[in-house]
This record gives sequence, C-alpha cells and structure tokens, in this order.
Amino acid sequence: MHRVVVVGGGFGGLYAARHLSNASLQVTLVDRRNFHLFQPLLYQVATGGLSPGDIASPLRSILKKQRHVEVLQAEVVDLDPAAKKLVLGEGALPYDTLIVAAGSRVHHFGNEDWPQHAPGLKCIEDALEMRRRVLSAFERAERAKEQERRALLRFVVIGGGPTGVELAGALAELSYNTLRNEFRHFDTRDVEILLLEGGARLLPTFPAALSARAQKSLLSLGARVQVGARVKSVAEDQVVYECAGETVEVAAATVLWGAGMRASKLAGIIAERTGAEVDRGGRVKVEPDLSVKGYPEILLLGDMAHCVGADGEPLPGVAPVAMQQGRYAARLVSARSKGGDPGPFRYVNKGNLAVIGRHAAVADLGFLRLSGYPAWLIWLFVHIAYLIEFDNKVMVLFQWAWNYFTRKRGARLITEEKK
Amino acid sequence: MHRVVVVGGGFGGLYAARHLSNASLQVTLVDRRNFHLFQPLLYQVATGGLSPGDIASPLRSILKKQRHVEVLQAEVVDLDPAAKKLVLGEGALPYDTLIVAAGSRVHHFGNEDWPQHAPGLKCIEDALEMRRRVLSAFERAERAKEQERRALLRFVVIGGGPTGVELAGALAELSYNTLRNEFRHFDTRDVEILLLEGGARLLPTFPAALSARAQKSLLSLGARVQVGARVKSVAEDQVVYECAGETVEVAAATVLWGAGMRASKLAGIIAERTGAEVDRGGRVKVEPDLSVKGYPEILLLGDMAHCVGADGEPLPGVAPVAMQQGRYAARLVSARSKGGDPGPFRYVNKGNLAVIGRHAAVADLGFLRLSGYPAWLIWLFVHIAYLIEFDNKVMVLFQWAWNYFTRKRGARLITEEKK
Repeated sequence: MHRVVVVGGGFGGLYAARHLSNASLQVTLVDRRNFHLFQPLLYQVATGGLSPGDIASPLRSILKKQRHVEVLQAEVVDLDPAAKKLVLGEGALPYDTLIVAAGSRVHHFGNEDWPQHAPGLKCIEDALEMRRRVLSAFERAERAKEQERRALLRFVVIGGGPTGVELAGALAELSYNTLRNEFRHFDTRDVEILLLEGGARLLPTFPAALSARAQKSLLSLGARVQVGARVKSVAEDQVVYECAGETVEVAAATVLWGAGMRASKLAGIIAERTGAEVDRGGRVKVEPDLSVKGYPEILLLGDMAHCVGADGEPLPGVAPVAMQQGRYAARLVSARSKGGDPGPFRYVNKGNLAVIGRHAAVADLGFLRLSGYPAWLIWLFVHIAYLIEFDNKVMVLFQWAWNYFTRKRGARLITEEKK
Repeated sequence: MHRVVVVGGGFGGLYAARHLSNASLQVTLVDRRNFHLFQPLLYQVATGGLSPGDIASPLRSILKKQRHVEVLQAEVVDLDPAAKKLVLGEGALPYDTLIVAAGSRVHHFGNEDWPQHAPGLKCIEDALEMRRRVLSAFERAERAKEQERRALLRFVVIGGGPTGVELAGALAELSYNTLRNEFRHFDTRDVEILLLEGGARLLPTFPAALSARAQKSLLSLGARVQVGARVKSVAEDQVVYECAGETVEVAAATVLWGAGMRASKLAGIIAERTGAEVDRGGRVKVEPDLSVKGYPEILLLGDMAHCVGADGEPLPGVAPVAMQQGRYAARLVSARSKGGDPGPFRYVNKGNLAVIGRHAAVADLGFLRLSGYPAWLIWLFVHIAYLIEFDNKVMVLFQWAWNYFTRKRGARLITEEKK
C-alpha cells in the first residue's frame, strides 16, 4: 500500500488529507497539536471576542470518517530523504510520498529581545498572551497614578498587514465600545491606539485605493496610523521608530507584533537534507508541481513553500494558496498512482480580504473592489462558511451575532501567564 | 461615606456586591482574577464540553451599571483589623465594613507529591490542565504499545462527591460517545473509568436512595465505582488504595482529584489577626450574623466561613449558602447604616443537585427526590438560569443544545502545559 505522510494540520495539510480520498492509500497526518486552528480569527481570541475552542477543531474529529486516514500527534525533528523516513520525537515514519505543510512562525527580524516586549500572533497561546497583556493593561490603569496611566492606556501595533490592521481595529472596538463604563478612574475614550507600518501604506498587497479606505476606517474607529515608520527598538514600555528622518519615542505598556513571519524551522531542515534552495523568508523553492528538486516524492506547500505564480512572483502566504495546493497535492498523488500527471500547480486568485472592524473591511475580488459594509459581509460569509464546512461550527455564527448585537466580548478572561 | 470592601468575586462576594445597592456606600470588590467563575460547570471545561469563556464573566462587566461599585484586581496579602485596613500586594485599602468571601482551594490531605499526579479542579487553569492530561492520554494511547496502552486508557477519579461524580460521568461520555471512531489503533470502548470513594456511598450529603441511583447511573454510563476505597498513595501512573482490608494497585496514566477542599489561605490570616477559631477544614468560626467574634465590621461568608445552621451542624460549602450569605451581608450593612438589625443569618435550603451525565442527575428538593431525566432537566434549568441572570450567557444554552444533539464536545484542545 502506498504510504502518504502529511505534515501539518493547517489549511494546506488538512486540505491534502481531506482530498486523499482514495482508500487504497494509507495516509498519516502528523501535527504537533491535536487541532486545526482557523488562524484568520486568532485576532478575535487575542481581543476577547471568541474563545480558543471557537476557532479550533480536533483534527481527529474532522477526519473521523476517512477510515484510511490516521492522525498522529507528534513533533517532526528530522528528515532522511534517502531512506524516505520522517524522524519524529519518538520513532520514525516511513513514507512513499511526503507532503509537508508546516506553515510559518513569528519572526522579529532577528531581534532577540523584541519577542518578550512585543509578542506575535501565530498560535492559541500567543493569542491568550496578547489577551492577557491587553486586559491587564486596563486593570493596571485602573489602579495606576495619572502619569503611569498614560503609558498603560497606549497600545502600539507594529505592522500594517492584515494582522496589524485587524488587531488595531479590534483594540479600538474593545476600548471605545466594549469596555466603556467599566472603569471608575479613567475614561476608556482616552485610550490611544497607534498602528505603525514601515512601508508607504497599509495592506501593501491590496490596491492603493483599498489601503486608503482601510486607513480611513481605522481612523474613524479611533485608531491612529503612522506609515513610513521604521521601528528601531522595542523595550519594556517603550517603542522607538524613525519616520521622515525623525526619531520618535513612544511610551506604551502594551506593544503587539503584527509584522514579520518566517517559514517553519522544518523548511530549513528539508532544504539542508535535500540541497534545495531557500528564499529570504526561509521558504523552500519548489518545482511547478510543488516537489523538491530531485525528490519528486516530497511535496511542499503553503507558507513554507516558495512557489512561483503566473506573474513570475512567489505566491503569497495566504490561506487560499495553501488550500488549493493541498487539493492539488492530493490530486497529484492520485494521478501518479494511475501513471498520470495533472500538470503544474496553478493558483486561481479568487480575491483578497482584510477585516478592520464591525462593518468595516476591504475586499479585492479582481473584477470588483469593495470596502465598508459590503466587504465586511463578504468577509463574514467566507469565514463562517469555512468554519461550518470543517466542523459544523454553527455556534460561532450565533456567538458572532450575539457579539454583534450586544457589542459584548464574552471571552475577556485574564488567565495564567505563559511561562 | 461608608466604605465597604468585598474580597472575592465568587458566589458570595458577587451577591454581596450586587445587593449593596445603596448608592451612599462606597463599595470596592477585590479579586485576584478579573472574572467571576461559574465553578459548578468547571468539569465541563475539564472534559472539553465548554470553553473557559462560556463559564466566566468579567466582574467589571457584571457590575458595570452599579456606578458606586469599583472593581480592583489585586491580591490580598494581610489584614490589619485594628487599623481597619486590608493589605494588598500593592498598597492598602481602608474599610469601614469588610466582607470576605475568598472561597476554598484544593487540598490533598497534606500529601505534597499528590497534586502533581492527581490535579484538582478549582480554577480555569486546573480545568485546562485536566483537559490536557485527559486528551493527551488518548493521543499517547494511539501511538503506544499494547501494554502501555492499558494504563493510558484507564482513568481514576478520586472522591465520590459531586465533582468526582461529574468528572467520572463526563469522562464516560467523552470516551464512549464523543471520541468513538476517532482512533485507529484502539477502540474507545476499552477505556476504563474508575471512581474511588472513601466512604460507604457516593454523594454522602444526599439521601442514601439518591446515592444508589447515582451509582447506578454511572454504571450504566460505563464507569466503575468503588466505595470504601481509601487512597494510600498517588504516584506517576499508579494509585494504591485499601478496600475491605485488601491493598489494590491500579496502573493509570491519568488520575483526577475530586476529593478534599480547604478554606482559602486568607481564612488563616484572618483567624491569626483576629484571634478567631478555625475548624478542621481551615474555616473561620463566625457569629450568627457572619461577623468575626469581637469584630462586628468583619463579615465572613461562603466556603471559608464555619457558620452553624439550624440543625447545629456547619453549613455545607455550596453555592446557594454563599449566595444567601452574600445577600444577607448586604442587608446587614444597609440595616446597620439605619441603626437597624436584620437578625441572624438563616439558610433556606431549596435543594441539592448533582449531575452525572446526559439525562442523568439526582435532585433532593426536600419534599421531593428525583433522579434521571427529570432531575437532569432541573439541573439544566437552574444552571442556565444562573448563567443568564449574571451575564446573559444565552450562548451557553445554544452551545449545550448543540452538544446535546450532536454529542460533540467542541473545546477538545490540548493547549500548553501549565508550568
């Protein structure tokens, strides 16, 4: 029996496992965690709008009915491509075809002390850490002296991509709506939210007109945006950035990192073992059929694969790319088993979405560019459809409707610090 | 202005703060955490049925509309009854009336190494730790060898009170229903669940007939019950108990503690500072008006107060006692401010409930004793009514309905270990 090993239960790996429906295959999905995480909604957990359980589904539960698919919770530590073996924390796993979709990780541009002062957002624990910091800043502000309070009520978000924009928008709603009237020693309208972007505009992968709309939406929510701001240092209670030749120091107790991402460490291991090239983001360069040069049985996909698109540029690290690649990988395995060849992978870009807040989003559908309420409805529909497709998470729909009408955020708990 | 300080945002403290509605008072509610926790449903979090956010509500949000009530997240470290000051981690808080309802904590009968092998259930972090252990045991069993697998699929719950019974019942449902068909290397029907109770019957505070019903319900769910089992030692992967003169060793990877509770450490501090007596459970003996002898301005309530009931026995550490005491304390403060006296506290026992599982509970309403489906409906109604009263948590109702019809448990995540 042909053994297919899939590494990673994210969008890419899960789509691959789902579509490897040929029962003559023996499929093993390996992940460090026991659940699939719907990362586009992590910012909601970080700001108390949803609970971790709302955006995560046990992998076993998703794949329960595919009896030929096995789920293994294990850490991948190495690869032996000559012996066709994946080395796990405990034992090894032989494969005939290996599909690797281990994603990316937060990257602070190599500044070792930045992560502790400006945590990033990639996993549940990151989101809970952000939530703890944000809510604790409000709690501390309630008992702080006036001067100290200023810094406690200032939130700096670094990075003007989708994550940074989502965080800044959600922080604005949290501060100016949800938490309003809950404190006795200050007015939450005095909270300052500052979004710093190094480039010339927010959401650089979107058309310029939509970037401008996003910035306007954020401003109307009450957040400030500074583009062209290059962060120089992040220390305890302080961010320093350079903008138009000037150096600006900002005193802020809470700094959130929405900027750099880098391919998972496994990408480096694979490159080393196979001699494949990596790009500046640590991604492994793959052939048009997603395989590693010289190793047709090793397929790489999602955020850790550098796959060149029709325009000659590498495809972006977004969910739709990973999903389509996962489906393609499954088709490739199936075609090969019959001696066929599905041709190279082609990405079909159906659009690009980013949410800013209640009623505010931007959508670039290629033929149509939307912002505000219509874009927000599309965003909502796409996200809910996904959650329901995979785990029947209709509850999240109700939760959202509830939050929407009450402007409440029910998951505002400060739980124990991650150590 | 009369300053009232309430310590603890549990059932007792929250009811007190809620009913201190006289706007001429200045009320401060102090809690280490920023949320009120609905402890009766913690076992649902421990077994993946609900998320922490479903059973916790931010204290500020609950008390938002009482403008004369202030919430302070702080740790109480000492008391100076002569100066009428509560000493916090940072600073001190003067009071005219002090209401302390700091609850209880898990107690392993003084065995220092038991907690790490058999975690108890008192806070959100405890519940997440239990969830992690339980779900990890299943994950490890999937990749274990036959002999090791036996111990991984054996769960021992120590303590046959409501917590132990709830945990054993929920584990049975998790194993035999929810997780069915999710593993490829074993059948979840082979899971063994063993509930150990030291006394002669389960639920000793209930009438004997209901104890028998509870035991029968657990058996029909698939759990085993051993009464008269005195636990001798708890070590890694092993529990030893004595029963009818015999010593029994059980190999089990997961042991959960549903037994001892002891009054919060603050009870000891108060006793030391005021010279009050404490009982064997660490609870401070209080006067009929809940005050500490010689200190009429210090009121103690809930799990940390030893308050004698009409039958001469101390009142049990259950939610209704704390709620009624909280309401009484508020009434006492109000009456005193007008020179009045509401008389001693009297507990009105409206009934006693314990849930075993889907469709199975026992209810002792005094005039009526119920078990099975009718008792379960009462349990459900009482718990949902409470959740909705305090935080409009109608979402939990939907979540439950959903879990009920699908037999799913959506919050089955293994998140990072508590260190």
